[in-house]
Amino acid sequence: MPPPMLLLRLACLLFLASACGLRAAPASAAPVEQWGIFEVSLPGPTAGNPFLEVDFSARFTHDASTFDVPGFYDGNGTYRVRFMPDQTGDWHYETRSNAPALAGQSGNFTVGPPGPGDHGPVRVAATYHFAYADGTAYFPLGTTLYRWTHVNDAREELTLHTLAASPFNKVRMIIPPIQWDPAHGEPLFFPFAGTPPLGWDFTRFNPDFFRHLEQRVGQLRDLGIEADLILFAPYDHGRLGFDRMPAAVDDRYVRYVVARLAAYRNVWWSLANEYDLMHEKNEADWDRLFQIIQKADPYQHLRSIHHSVLIYDNSQPWVTHASIQNGSAVEDAGRAELYRDVWRKPVIFDEVKYEGNIDKRWGQLTAQEMVQRFWEGTIAGTYVGHGEVLQVAGSNDTWTDSGGELRGQSPARLAFLRSIVATAPNLDPIDKWQDSRLAGQPGQYYLLYFGAAAPANWPFVLPKEGLTEGATFAVDILDTWNMTVTPVPGKFTVNKRDAYTFADAQGRSIPLPAQPWLALRIRRVSP
Amino acid sequence: MPPPMLLLRLACLLFLASACGLRAAPASAAPVEQWGIFEVSLPGPTAGNPFLEVDFSARFTHDASTFDVPGFYDGNGTYRVRFMPDQTGDWHYETRSNAPALAGQSGNFTVGPPGPGDHGPVRVAATYHFAYADGTAYFPLGTTLYRWTHVNDAREELTLHTLAASPFNKVRMIIPPIQWDPAHGEPLFFPFAGTPPLGWDFTRFNPDFFRHLEQRVGQLRDLGIEADLILFAPYDHGRLGFDRMPAAVDDRYVRYVVARLAAYRNVWWSLANEYDLMHEKNEADWDRLFQIIQKADPYQHLRSIHHSVLIYDNSQPWVTHASIQNGSAVEDAGRAELYRDVWRKPVIFDEVKYEGNIDKRWGQLTAQEMVQRFWEGTIAGTYVGHGEVLQVAGSNDTWTDSGGELRGQSPARLAFLRSIVATAPNLDPIDKWQDSRLAGQPGQYYLLYFGAAAPANWPFVLPKEGLTEGATFAVDILDTWNMTVTPVPGKFTVNKRDAYTFADAQGRSIPLPAQPWLALRIRRVSP
Repeated sequence: MPPPMLLLRLACLLFLASACGLRAAPASAAPVEQWGIFEVSLPGPTAGNPFLEVDFSARFTHDASTFDVPGFYDGNGTYRVRFMPDQTGDWHYETRSNAPALAGQSGNFTVGPPGPGDHGPVRVAATYHFAYADGTAYFPLGTTLYRWTHVNDAREELTLHTLAASPFNKVRMIIPPIQWDPAHGEPLFFPFAGTPPLGWDFTRFNPDFFRHLEQRVGQLRDLGIEADLILFAPYDHGRLGFDRMPAAVDDRYVRYVVARLAAYRNVWWSLANEYDLMHEKNEADWDRLFQIIQKADPYQHLRSIHHSVLIYDNSQPWVTHASIQNGSAVEDAGRAELYRDVWRKPVIFDEVKYEGNIDKRWGQLTAQEMVQRFWEGTIAGTYVGHGEVLQVAGSNDTWTDSGGELRGQSPARLAFLRSIVATAPNLDPIDKWQDSRLAGQPGQYYLLYFGAAAPANWPFVLPKEGLTEGATFAVDILDTWNMTVTPVPGKFTVNKRDAYTFADAQGRSIPLPAQPWLALRIRRVSP
Repeated sequence: MPPPMLLLRLACLLFLASACGLRAAPASAAPVEQWGIFEVSLPGPTAGNPFLEVDFSARFTHDASTFDVPGFYDGNGTYRVRFMPDQTGDWHYETRSNAPALAGQSGNFTVGPPGPGDHGPVRVAATYHFAYADGTAYFPLGTTLYRWTHVNDAREELTLHTLAASPFNKVRMIIPPIQWDPAHGEPLFFPFAGTPPLGWDFTRFNPDFFRHLEQRVGQLRDLGIEADLILFAPYDHGRLGFDRMPAAVDDRYVRYVVARLAAYRNVWWSLANEYDLMHEKNEADWDRLFQIIQKADPYQHLRSIHHSVLIYDNSQPWVTHASIQNGSAVEDAGRAELYRDVWRKPVIFDEVKYEGNIDKRWGQLTAQEMVQRFWEGTIAGTYVGHGEVLQVAGSNDTWTDSGGELRGQSPARLAFLRSIVATAPNLDPIDKWQDSRLAGQPGQYYLLYFGAAAPANWPFVLPKEGLTEGATFAVDILDTWNMTVTPVPGKFTVNKRDAYTFADAQGRSIPLPAQPWLALRIRRVSP
């Protein structure tokens, strides 16, 4: 389907309303949906430095629910506070500020049911998995688009068009502008007032930068895509300086990002990419920044941090899930699943090397290798992220650097994977100390992945957990590369085989085509 | 060598001295070696319940060093405090107590150099490894002897005799008595006053139990074997009740164990075996018990906790190293190494299933599988523990249950492994995201393990780290099953091959015998 980029979105409506100089957005003018955005905008002080001197927030209440929501200065004398209501019904707000004009403003508004495709923010579910706030399962199938919002409108619109036709439902993207390749020219916008490369006034934000970012985050939301926003990254090597700001500036920056963006339901906070390569900060800095987000975000969006070689302590309570870089770990489900038990949190292998043709080892995966990593990670009860660095002659541009078009062969296979998991329960290892190829829910649903092996048959034997004599199953053969689902004729009824397993009562094996990249889907059909 | 069980050990001497009713052990009578035991014994109150009512400790000082050491009531009116001096020279002590007879007693003693085989306690070294306090490398090669001190003298002496001829330098052993098999009869001693199975006075310890335990721990020390003492275990299912004591009793028990045993330099604290099967305690209990040990142990012996399926949070500061149960993880070095980076601490896979012939899946490893797990773990830069449940007709006794004699084929191969690592540096993964088979120290020393593969040759190519053109190596082919070391004729000088690797300048491969269980040892010989 085409991306609904031309639809008037609520945030735009609110922006127009506030531009009219209303003291507060009229609740009746723009009906708010559950998990949509309700915005209050007020004119306020312009003297001095409002970014530093004016505190502004609002308390939103509904029955017994109370949210204290930080606001922000949007320039030109306008102050805003954005709220994502988590319940339908009548809400009330009252503003707070050290500026009299911004304090004690109150109003009421009504929140209606969520619109089409609005399932709320994504939360951790069943320890290792994810679900939207309305209970709908969410299987992260992410891609990496580090600089896609730092290029130009035409390429950014092309990226959105590509995403709309892709299987991806999460995008990793870096907030601070970075110039990786001088051929790209200077980024479009900068988060602080001043001039590049280093003429910044770190006491004043640049609202244009954030409006642009918000536009893109909102477009992702409208495509059903989560925005895994990376707040810090090391790759600019000090050229623009956003990777080595003073701690007080980092703290203000993080608070400003949260105040502006937390009301977007599709936001995730990825505190840093390869945090351990940012040698100007130490682990205490990351702890502090995490805690600022944890305290400032009224909605407790998902929080993680991505590493190079030093894994952050993901057992900290402010980490909701592990964001791992390790391609080797997803070569084998028996490797990938080990991290789950360490933290008892969801694990996303956000970086596993990329499908590509560049001269770096991290950018040389074949499409088959990329797809295998997704399947191994899936079977491990974890999640995997995609990236693509396939260059064409005459250009260094790649999808993962700056968006545009996908060229690889893996996305189509990842769409196939998505179609399989769309009808699957949460996938957990079934008998991990014995056979790491098997995932599912004991007694009900199994996925068995053979990877590069090319088996000619599979004896129908399953671990005993969840099984009783007479349980009957239907089986499909999945070709994960050629994207076919082939039902196996007949049904399989199990009897107890030994102390640990049940087997087909007729002792049958399932013939397989002796090719790589096969999987079996085994579903309970009775009793 | 035969175990030096008949040697008079220092602890025995001190025991005799204190039995003479001296107010303090005379420093001149028993010269104390560095990391030996200096004991002060004093007569004190017998009225009431000394275990509950009398506090007793001593402060030991040497130059700027001060140790506050808890003492203990040893029954029959005798109080003791044991001290392991970490420096040679003149020491002073002064006792403290709420009982006047035990307070303010002081004395001096001189500590001489360590005796033969005394390298001090084992510490964490180089993040992932271990070394004795004197700097000597320590490569843990442990075995499991859960109940060996709960049987009878003849079998316990046989166990020591077997250990003396074995490659093992660490023993996992459970302190509380457990009766797993009624054929074994009731355990010899119990830690509390009273009668089995449940007639305990939890306010009074049984010194005989602890003297027996100390004797065995001392004998292990004299064999050069670390005693990995398990303080709690779930396997008695409440029959004797030591697995479900009230929290206040647990706390007193832990303090008493530490007061009695911490002066033994070969002690490690394993807080529990399969802690997560002890459903009467929660994680806060384990945190508390760990912290009691951390605070009470003057020497900060190694601390860990062993799990069934729920891994404890080993990032806690009171955990010195991870003690892992997971056989699957050491089937592949690429799995085993993942845990290291999570905690940045040493990882010991203390339970990886056992060499055995019983009907449980955890007791059916072939010797080849057991040995492979040790090699995979070693190549991962981790450590592995041995266990054996090989039963003979007519008996349920096994080595890992209750000691006796080893029957398996793996110990000889583990002795071979020990001989290899004895001349190796610390082994760390060299290029883990590319080739998990390779460990060592970059540029200097490599072990390359082929596991069950049966390669006919290996092209001499190494990752670039630590290499320069002209570096020259000697190679040995190791047959880890047949226990042979075969030098490869000639030397191998490397040149740069590509952006990531160096290779033999003549492009040679090393012919291999196309058998499983091979490894290569590659040592820098020049420049």
